[in-house]
Amino acid sequence: MAMDIVEELLKGNVLALSRAITAIENEYDNASEIMAKLYPHTGHAFVLGITGPPGAGKSTLTDKLAKAYRAQGKTVGIIAIDPTSPFTGGAILGDRIRMNSLTLDDGVFIRSMGTRGSLGGLSHKTADAVKAMDAFGKDVIFVETVGVGQSEVDIVKAADTTMVVLIPGMGDDIQAIKAGILEIGDVFTINKADHEGADKLVREMNMMLDLNGMMMDWRPPIQKVIANQGEGIKETIENVTNHFKHIEANGVLAERRTKRTRNEILDVLNTSIGKHITKNLVATGDLDKYVEQIKNHETDPYTVVASVMKKMLK
Amino acid sequence: MAMDIVEELLKGNVLALSRAITAIENEYDNASEIMAKLYPHTGHAFVLGITGPPGAGKSTLTDKLAKAYRAQGKTVGIIAIDPTSPFTGGAILGDRIRMNSLTLDDGVFIRSMGTRGSLGGLSHKTADAVKAMDAFGKDVIFVETVGVGQSEVDIVKAADTTMVVLIPGMGDDIQAIKAGILEIGDVFTINKADHEGADKLVREMNMMLDLNGMMMDWRPPIQKVIANQGEGIKETIENVTNHFKHIEANGVLAERRTKRTRNEILDVLNTSIGKHITKNLVATGDLDKYVEQIKNHETDPYTVVASVMKKMLK
Repeated sequence: MAMDIVEELLKGNVLALSRAITAIENEYDNASEIMAKLYPHTGHAFVLGITGPPGAGKSTLTDKLAKAYRAQGKTVGIIAIDPTSPFTGGAILGDRIRMNSLTLDDGVFIRSMGTRGSLGGLSHKTADAVKAMDAFGKDVIFVETVGVGQSEVDIVKAADTTMVVLIPGMGDDIQAIKAGILEIGDVFTINKADHEGADKLVREMNMMLDLNGMMMDWRPPIQKVIANQGEGIKETIENVTNHFKHIEANGVLAERRTKRTRNEILDVLNTSIGKHITKNLVATGDLDKYVEQIKNHETDPYTVVASVMKKMLK
Repeated sequence: MAMDIVEELLKGNVLALSRAITAIENEYDNASEIMAKLYPHTGHAFVLGITGPPGAGKSTLTDKLAKAYRAQGKTVGIIAIDPTSPFTGGAILGDRIRMNSLTLDDGVFIRSMGTRGSLGGLSHKTADAVKAMDAFGKDVIFVETVGVGQSEVDIVKAADTTMVVLIPGMGDDIQAIKAGILEIGDVFTINKADHEGADKLVREMNMMLDLNGMMMDWRPPIQKVIANQGEGIKETIENVTNHFKHIEANGVLAERRTKRTRNEILDVLNTSIGKHITKNLVATGDLDKYVEQIKNHETDPYTVVASVMKKMLK
């Protein structure tokens, strides 16, 4: 390559940062090498995860929060995870929604990542993109996901503090969503708080937190916000800051980061081995052979896997 | 075990079916053996995937469709994938919502599966639960997921026909959702069609399908439905049946099933190898050692993974 991506990135070259994340996202051959070299320069940024159901106004909220951090003189990175077509790949939301005033600010770097691929690689790609921004020198890094499923939960595991954004009037599924996110939310934001049902939602959330209260040394605050009017943004930033100070003081931050390193090793390992073996099975023609045998009811996937593992593992 | 699960399941013992799925879900040691034995008895059921954003009324719709199939004399299996707390595990929605008239019908078997675990095992567990119901003799198997992310897409890959359920008034994220699901939807259902914006949504969907039209030999029908009033259910069943006949006739069904077998091998393989290696790294204490070294900036996850792969793969 003409440009030494790592060297340039560490010097603050935005194009190099962009290329590094492209290498991560597309699993280019040099991605592991880049990450290995960036790794020693990471660990300084504060990582804020933002998740919630579709329509909760997360991107508007992220923009307002980013501006508030910028007003404090902090540099900001934003990673927006977008639902992607499983076939064509590529992020959809990103370029459409993010055409706003933030993009004119040199202190803000915004990147969309698509949810393509199915080997569970997204959480590790997101974690790597966070690291690239961290090594670049960003003070605060947002990781924003649309959704409330397991993949979103995996993604926000890359965060120091996780904010869950809810809105009034979510319908039947809200109970399940609330239960699912209750334990990942360090800070709750009720956006569109001028809509009907906001106070009811706050009450319900409080009740659920009360029920859970015995186990908590941190009571997640619930803040009503009207993001597009800028209301509640200051209080939200305070909540986030308080949470970070809290986990820094009581050792939970160090614990989370250790756990994250652990998961990272396993994640990278699983993805790498999966790729290695798939490549091998395809190249040798064994995969097609097995598919044919299973179709003819001569064997089954479980028997196949047992024999492949015997063949490939020491 | 006191009961021969496979033998009893094939005889039509519901308790055995339930236990088989529990073994799959919790990754009991006997799960692979059960699946290997059930495998030859599969391939008869029609598998219908139902997905869509939270609040779209998928469970009500599923119930109505299930009743319609029952009225045709067909037996039904329902697998509901529920958002789960990442820490406590276990499905949440299931037992709460599913306490309805369907559960009194012997011809219907309903099972909730939680989205716990992070090694991407859910799609393969769902596929196995489908196979267990198939071997049991269910004619139609529903796989219902909440959400529109990559994990839901992976899950509906287990289906012959995929129905995407949308509702009017989804807010900003609808554009992204639509683009994401456009290519996985064989049949579209606009539920809550008496709400404002239903016709607009149908028009928008049609426009998107028009733009995509060049590549399609099947035009996904869009049906307006009011599930809780039973309106549009008959037409929806017809759409589903037409799609299945279409892919049966033109060879796409056979193609999909071949592809599914292929993905299944890779899925089982990845999960099994991942588990094997994690177990090994934990048991030897290597994982903790690596985490410590990374924390001290002596190495990084990529270098660690390269050396572990060298050690463990033939």
